[in-house]
Formats: sequence, C-alpha cells, structure tokens
Amino acid sequence: MANPTPIESTAWLTLLRAPGLGPASIRTLLERHGSAASAVTAAAKDAAVPQAARDALRTPDRAALDADRRWLDQPGHALIPVTSSDYPALLRDIPTAPAALFVAGDPMHLWSPQIAIVGARSASASGLANARQFARAFAQAGNVVTSGLAEGVDGAAHAAALDAGGVTIAVLGTGPDLVYPRQHRALAARIEEHGALVSEFPPGTAGKPENFPRRNRIIAGLSLGTLVIEAGLKSGSLITARLAAEQGREVFALPGSIHSPLARGCHRLIRDGALLVESADEVLEQLRGIGARLADHLREQLAEDGREPAASGDASAAHAGDPGYARLLAAIDHTPAGLDELAARSGLGVATLSSMLLVLELEGSVVAADGGRYARLS
Amino acid sequence: MANPTPIESTAWLTLLRAPGLGPASIRTLLERHGSAASAVTAAAKDAAVPQAARDALRTPDRAALDADRRWLDQPGHALIPVTSSDYPALLRDIPTAPAALFVAGDPMHLWSPQIAIVGARSASASGLANARQFARAFAQAGNVVTSGLAEGVDGAAHAAALDAGGVTIAVLGTGPDLVYPRQHRALAARIEEHGALVSEFPPGTAGKPENFPRRNRIIAGLSLGTLVIEAGLKSGSLITARLAAEQGREVFALPGSIHSPLARGCHRLIRDGALLVESADEVLEQLRGIGARLADHLREQLAEDGREPAASGDASAAHAGDPGYARLLAAIDHTPAGLDELAARSGLGVATLSSMLLVLELEGSVVAADGGRYARLS
Repeated sequence: MANPTPIESTAWLTLLRAPGLGPASIRTLLERHGSAASAVTAAAKDAAVPQAARDALRTPDRAALDADRRWLDQPGHALIPVTSSDYPALLRDIPTAPAALFVAGDPMHLWSPQIAIVGARSASASGLANARQFARAFAQAGNVVTSGLAEGVDGAAHAAALDAGGVTIAVLGTGPDLVYPRQHRALAARIEEHGALVSEFPPGTAGKPENFPRRNRIIAGLSLGTLVIEAGLKSGSLITARLAAEQGREVFALPGSIHSPLARGCHRLIRDGALLVESADEVLEQLRGIGARLADHLREQLAEDGREPAASGDASAAHAGDPGYARLLAAIDHTPAGLDELAARSGLGVATLSSMLLVLELEGSVVAADGGRYARLS
Repeated sequence: MANPTPIESTAWLTLLRAPGLGPASIRTLLERHGSAASAVTAAAKDAAVPQAARDALRTPDRAALDADRRWLDQPGHALIPVTSSDYPALLRDIPTAPAALFVAGDPMHLWSPQIAIVGARSASASGLANARQFARAFAQAGNVVTSGLAEGVDGAAHAAALDAGGVTIAVLGTGPDLVYPRQHRALAARIEEHGALVSEFPPGTAGKPENFPRRNRIIAGLSLGTLVIEAGLKSGSLITARLAAEQGREVFALPGSIHSPLARGCHRLIRDGALLVESADEVLEQLRGIGARLADHLREQLAEDGREPAASGDASAAHAGDPGYARLLAAIDHTPAGLDELAARSGLGVATLSSMLLVLELEGSVVAADGGRYARLS
C-alpha cells in the first residue's frame, strides 16, 4: 500500500492536530490546495481559518508530532488520509467522513464487507449470547464484524468473530494507542493481530464523552449494515443506528421482551423502520442486495475519481467480457489469497479489487475465506 | 331491542340451517326478496340454489328448528340477522359478514368499542401475564375485550377483563349452547352474564376444525383492532390478524425473544406491517384515531341505509348544533347509564346512539364506564 511521504505525513498530522479544524474543513482545504503540505502553508495564512488553528499550523506542537511519528513508525501502524486510494470507499461516501484514519493492524480489512454489531454495555446474558451467535455467523460467512470495543455487546461481538477464525475491526473513541475500557487490552491486541483498530483521533487522545458519538458514525460508515442487539432508549447504539440509516445503510434490530428496558431501543428502531431480524441469515440475505448496489456505486465512484476504469453493469454477470474481471478471475484460484497478493497477481489497485471481489462474491463466483482472503468457487 | 317476529325468526333459522347456503348467498337472497320468509319460499324453487339447500328449505329439519327455538326462548338469548339494526355495524362492514349472530348475553355490548386479544393456546407464563395486563388496561379504559374463548391467551384475556369489572365478548367456533374447551364452562357462564357469547353457528353445532378460522373473522370484524400476544408461525391468531388487516383494522403484535417459537408469529406480523407495541396505552392511542374515522364512516353508512339522519362532519365538535347530539347530550348525566336507558331517554335508535357515543367519547365529552355504561365528562 502506498504510504504518504514523510513530509506529507507530517503535514497531515499537523492538520489533524490543529484545534478547531474539523474533518469537513480539512477536506475542503485538501480539495482547494491539492496536498496536505500546501494546505498547511495556505491555511496558516487564511483569515477564514480560526486563529487557534492558524497558530497551531504555524507553530505545530513538535512533541506531539514526534509522538505521532513514533507511533506511526511501529510495524502495522498506518495513517490513511481521505485522499488516499486506501481510504475505505464506503466510509468516504458519508458526508462526515473523517479526514484521516489511524490504523493499527491490516488496513486491507477496511475494504472487506463489514457488518456492524452494536449494543448495550450492560447487556443481559442472552444479549451477549445473541451478539456472539450473530458475530460468529457473520464471520463464518466471510464478513468482517465491526464494532466499538465497548463492554457488553461490542466486546462479545469482537471476541466471537475472532474465536470463529474471522476478522473484526474495532473503531475507537480514543487515540489508536489507548484502549478503553482497560479490561479489553488483551482483546484489542488480538484485534490488532487479526483485524484492525481504527481511530480518527491522534495517538494519546483520551476517551472524552463527545468522542464516542463521533466514533459511532465511523462504525456505521464502514459497514454495509448495522445490527443493534440490545439498547436502552438513551443509548449510543441508537445514535449509531440512526447514523447508519442517514447514511443509507440498512439497520437491523433484535426484538425482545416488552418488559426488558434493553429491548426498548431496538423496538423503537423497528417502529422507525429498522428491520426486525431473528437470525443472522436474514441479515446476510438482506445485505446481499445492498452489497451489490453498493459495489456498483463504488465502481462508478472510482471511475469518476479517475482511478481505474469501472467495470460496467450490475452485479449479475454483466461484467462478462470485462477485461478487468477477466484479469482478476485469472488471478484467483481455489487456494485462498489475500488482497495484497491478488493485487500483485492481477495488477489491479486494491480499491478496485475490493469492489470487484464483492461483486464476484455476491454472484457466487468467489468465496471469502478467513482473514480477508478470497478463493474461486466456480 | 326489536326481535324478529316468530315467523321471520323461524325462516331465518331455516336459511341458516340449509346446507350449502353460505353467508353471502343468504345475504343475496335477503336483498333480493326482502324478508327471510320470502327468501325461503323463493329459494326453495330457485334452480340456482344447490339441490341440498332447496330440499332443506322445502322440508326443514323440524327437530333442529324446535331445538333452536327452545334455545332462543331462554332469557338473554337472541338471534340477530344481518338485516337487523341491532347487528353490529363494524361487523356488517366486512365482506364475509355472517348472515346472523346467535348471542347469549347482552347484545348491546356488540356495539361498544371492542379490541380483540388473541394468541397461542400454549402460551408461556409471560404471554399469559401480558394477555391479562393488556386486557385489564383495555377494560379499564372502557373497551370491550373480544376473543375466542380458547385456552391460553384467549381465556386469560376474557378472565382479566371480567376481573377488572369490564365487559368481554367470546366468539365461538361451536353453536352458542356448547363450550369448547370444556374447562372454560365457568368462564363462559361469567362472560354470558357480563358480556356476550357470540356464534354464527346454530345451537348444537360441534367445534369442527374449519369453524375456527370462520370464527376468527368475526373476532377481527367486531373489533377496532386486533392484538396478537404470542403466536407460532402456523397459528390461528395469524389468520385473525391477517383478516383484521384485510378488513382495514389495525393489527398490533407484542415482540419477544428471537429464541421463542411463540414470538415468531408476532415478528412475522410486525415485518408484514403490524404495529409493534410495548404497552396498552400505545394500542389505545392508536385506536383513538381509527375509532374516530370508523365512527364517521358508520354514521355515513347509517345515513345511507336511511335509518336515521347522520350527524355531519368529523369527530372533533362538528356535531355542534346537530339536534341528534343535542338530544343525546341532554339525556346523559354524570351517573353512568346503559345504552338501553339512553335509547329510552333520547328516543334515538341503539345503532345511531352507539356511533354517536363513540364520537363523544373520542372527543372527551363522555366517558365509558364499566359494563358498557356512559356518563358526561364535560
């Protein structure tokens, strides 16, 4: 994967650490000035930029930037700016997409089809069992399980996906170097090894309350759909679900007893249009259609962005005769191979490759195996 | 209430007992020939009427008719043909309305706002508790609880409505003189005293399996809405709910655990558009609007049928200045009075009276007390 140059990378860190510069402002600066380095230089002199941000851009906090660099220099750590072709397209698609992601683990997993599982920190025993059951089924069907590393439902979903030999992504409300809650440190280490920890906050950022709703939009934005297992009426999970719906993603909710306060949030979601589901298969079935539409949309977007030619047509077999798909199918055999290897074999970029694999997976030509690897089925 | 003449009543019994003459055929004959007596004479010679029916109309089963008469002659027993102004308008409104109802108990209750509670015979302990809780709340809010006298949810709902001092109606899949299941004989006796047993089947009719779906359409047809408490996927309650939806009535369902087979039916209903409810108040709130629309519709229908002038306008206070409403309001005071008494005081017919009382209740001028009695609120 193409990493930014050291200068560009430092410029990005400077932008991300400037107080009062939100994702939207940073994205606008990037569009206007082309590179992060040019954006820093221009914004430092731009009267429209808040004074505190201009000060920080002119005289960055060297100690903080050095700490960021030390974190980034460790193996398996990466910074993926929104301008990078490695930035996951589903997340880029949302209006509030983070300006950059700090990733610990394999950033390739961000391109695999993800299903978010979220729910109450104080989940009931049956809520936790349901989280495990659905996470296992999603992982076994080749999906990445994405959640927020919180106690309760989140942790149970992450752990069950890993236990099933699958991949899981945890989106953090802290910097990528901190683990909250602390009792999930061992879990976080497993996730870094078999998935990815993702944060939009620079290293060292503590878990302030306002960070968690921001984290939730990333969970929803990375995922084809969001499943809420148990949630009270005033719950972060409802925020995640609402953001998912606003982003045009599917929202699923498990019903429960009318006497359980933790079913109330799910029932409200169902009344508001979320799909009531009883089994993981129902979620997977529903997402098949959505995944196909999203894959089409992503391909169009990649073509518009001028990265690589779009493979035209819908998810059926309309790619027949498309040289890109022919190249990819020639590169896949019955031994599962990872995205990196398939990219090397086919000469296709990772972004295009991911959406093409999704199309092939949905039409049943390719199967997603453990660890984000793919093999021929037919 | 106006009972049919003995001759007309015997003609009705003859029609109802003729094999192969369904409700629709009987209604057509009545429309064509004006009275049951004329319909019997004409249909006995009509080649379009099935041979078995013609035979039965020409030589009726005297023993059966005598048994019917003996049942009807007992106090509190009545036969209400669809042509009678006492036939409940909501039920008349459905395409498959029974040609006549056998009623044991007070037929006035058929005109009170009814909410159906149905569910599994093999309900769980919490299902039964929910049935009791909702039935009690509906009864306390002045509604009649209508169900099918079956084991499980039905029986729990009937008993709880009675225990709360309310009124309940049981629709039977047998003749009105039989109780199925037998262990509900004491319950049926209480219902006859504080509500009504209703059947479209003549006395002596055994509970054949095909009778129960037919019974279900009457439960749904009598009620403003139907609440399903617990139901398997192959359940009579789902039939009742579907009939209610087809009849344009509201369907409510309680969610439950995804691991409970008795929640499956409710979940399917919710996915098909039934309202997920957690409390009786939600049902009552929802039915307020529906009740107002139905009351309007009924008034229009009564006017079209040429019975009594319609009170024009919507359910707000559009009846202001309407002499019928003025008469009714003058007849109601703060001591609850039954429909019979209000009819006598106001000189209005029971049918008109019922729909007007519903309008007044919905606008908050009148309150429904226990036992189908009404009092002034404002």
